[in-house]
Amino acid sequence: MTPAVPANFGRLPKRVTVYEVGPRDGLQNESTVVPTAGKVALIEALAAAGLSRIEITSFMRPDRIAPLADADVLAAQISPRAGTRFVALIPNQHGLLRAQAAKLAEVAVVLSASETHNKKNINRSVAESLAEFRTLIPAARQAGISVRAYISTVWGCPYEGKVDPQHVLAIARELAGRGAEQISLGDTIGVGTPLQTARILEMFLPHFAPEALALHLHDTRGTALSNALVGLQFGITTFDASVGGLGGCPYAPGAAGNLATEDLVYLLHGLGIETGIDLDKLVDAGRLAQSLVGHSLPGRYLKAALAAKEKA
Amino acid sequence: MTPAVPANFGRLPKRVTVYEVGPRDGLQNESTVVPTAGKVALIEALAAAGLSRIEITSFMRPDRIAPLADADVLAAQISPRAGTRFVALIPNQHGLLRAQAAKLAEVAVVLSASETHNKKNINRSVAESLAEFRTLIPAARQAGISVRAYISTVWGCPYEGKVDPQHVLAIARELAGRGAEQISLGDTIGVGTPLQTARILEMFLPHFAPEALALHLHDTRGTALSNALVGLQFGITTFDASVGGLGGCPYAPGAAGNLATEDLVYLLHGLGIETGIDLDKLVDAGRLAQSLVGHSLPGRYLKAALAAKEKA
Repeated sequence: MTPAVPANFGRLPKRVTVYEVGPRDGLQNESTVVPTAGKVALIEALAAAGLSRIEITSFMRPDRIAPLADADVLAAQISPRAGTRFVALIPNQHGLLRAQAAKLAEVAVVLSASETHNKKNINRSVAESLAEFRTLIPAARQAGISVRAYISTVWGCPYEGKVDPQHVLAIARELAGRGAEQISLGDTIGVGTPLQTARILEMFLPHFAPEALALHLHDTRGTALSNALVGLQFGITTFDASVGGLGGCPYAPGAAGNLATEDLVYLLHGLGIETGIDLDKLVDAGRLAQSLVGHSLPGRYLKAALAAKEKA
Repeated sequence: MTPAVPANFGRLPKRVTVYEVGPRDGLQNESTVVPTAGKVALIEALAAAGLSRIEITSFMRPDRIAPLADADVLAAQISPRAGTRFVALIPNQHGLLRAQAAKLAEVAVVLSASETHNKKNINRSVAESLAEFRTLIPAARQAGISVRAYISTVWGCPYEGKVDPQHVLAIARELAGRGAEQISLGDTIGVGTPLQTARILEMFLPHFAPEALALHLHDTRGTALSNALVGLQFGITTFDASVGGLGGCPYAPGAAGNLATEDLVYLLHGLGIETGIDLDKLVDAGRLAQSLVGHSLPGRYLKAALAAKEKA
């Protein structure tokens, strides 16, 4: 018999969705441009491991993000697959048309909570981003396409420092009001610590169902999983992660960035939470990701698993 | 005004002691033999950063652990320092005599909860280790020396797999009964996840004051800080860590082992918990540790901080 969860541990969800961002957010921040066939193989390996939502590319202007310049060609090569939803980031109506041409069931939009980061990242003010999304989100929904909205720099901004969670909440409510079904809150620079995460969620949860939120945590200072644990204790059921921690930290070359999918899945399974993911197959996908970018990735579990296999 | 801690976050201690194991546990598992002068510089850098308890070496037989063969010479070169307690690991009465000669105020003993690991690590059965400590601990206490006892493989054994926490509890109570003032529970292979940690602590806390326990967590699969967070939520006030994550994982070369001190301190400070540690000075100690062993260390915060400094 499994012993009961200790009284002061918090309630945990029974099942969690891991939203895989490696092929888009990860590869976008790698200096190596991976050939389309390699990306297709990686996406297929991730789907085979049981990832049910995979962000495969970004429909930005092809000259803006060289590693993802093959977005349309790539998306056309990804076959529909039962149990897996493929997603692409879109910046505007033109991006939506490209996502429709690729027959994607879901798109994502992104803006930052802090003005300077949004300006440097997207070259728009926060108000300009919101104005765009006010028509873009309903247009996607009318086309039968689901929408998630990323809000970056929620735990802190590399240029402005502290970010007011009330300001983030106002942005999130505006996006949800326009039809975004899930708001992914991003600790873009990996400065978050658990009490801050608890305070942010305490502020959000009176206004959002836990299922309407996702946490996009970075492991730059090692705190991603402890923040994820707080999210779980507050009932959050979707977490973003990148295979092997692909992508690193764009603000500190050589340092960790995106939470590694294997580390997250190991934590979740250890908590008795179902994910539908096969961790061994995920390690295979991580090994493939390493070979595609030509260097080792920062994920802890991946390193340990590959070292153990080498030794065996 | 600081907002209140959310109701379901748990109570956190106001102050935590970080027990630094890098110079002993870290260097013991490094292939490079660091010269005594380098060790002295590292220990002084750690003390200067505000670490109040530092395990400096091990009084094993010098031919057993080549990286720590200079134990007596090293200990003689460490000057007493207000606010810092220096500790050494001892295996037996002879080790105690050497610790007394070095005028150390605290010693540590170690055994594993699992037979096979204890046999391979210490070449004794668990019963033989306990028999030794039954006289060794009181002898140290009678000499006015504090004693901590490590129990290894509490979360799992690399040879036997699962470990029964009730068996660990029996060992811990025996050691405490003989005079060990603190029991450090070790996740030696870094397999622990937070619910398991909660269950272990729930079993221990009816029998131990939180201050009489320490958590010695490894980050092999990325879960060390999330386990530490659970420890904090249960009121634990002492956590072991190794500067930069020095020592790696002896079971999986290249992978992470000991929790990195900087990652732990960043988490603690983010939770508003006092440590007395200056994180910038700790990064300096981490940089020194890297130069002494001649390779980069796995600590997340250290990597991010050094990358940011290089970029600046």
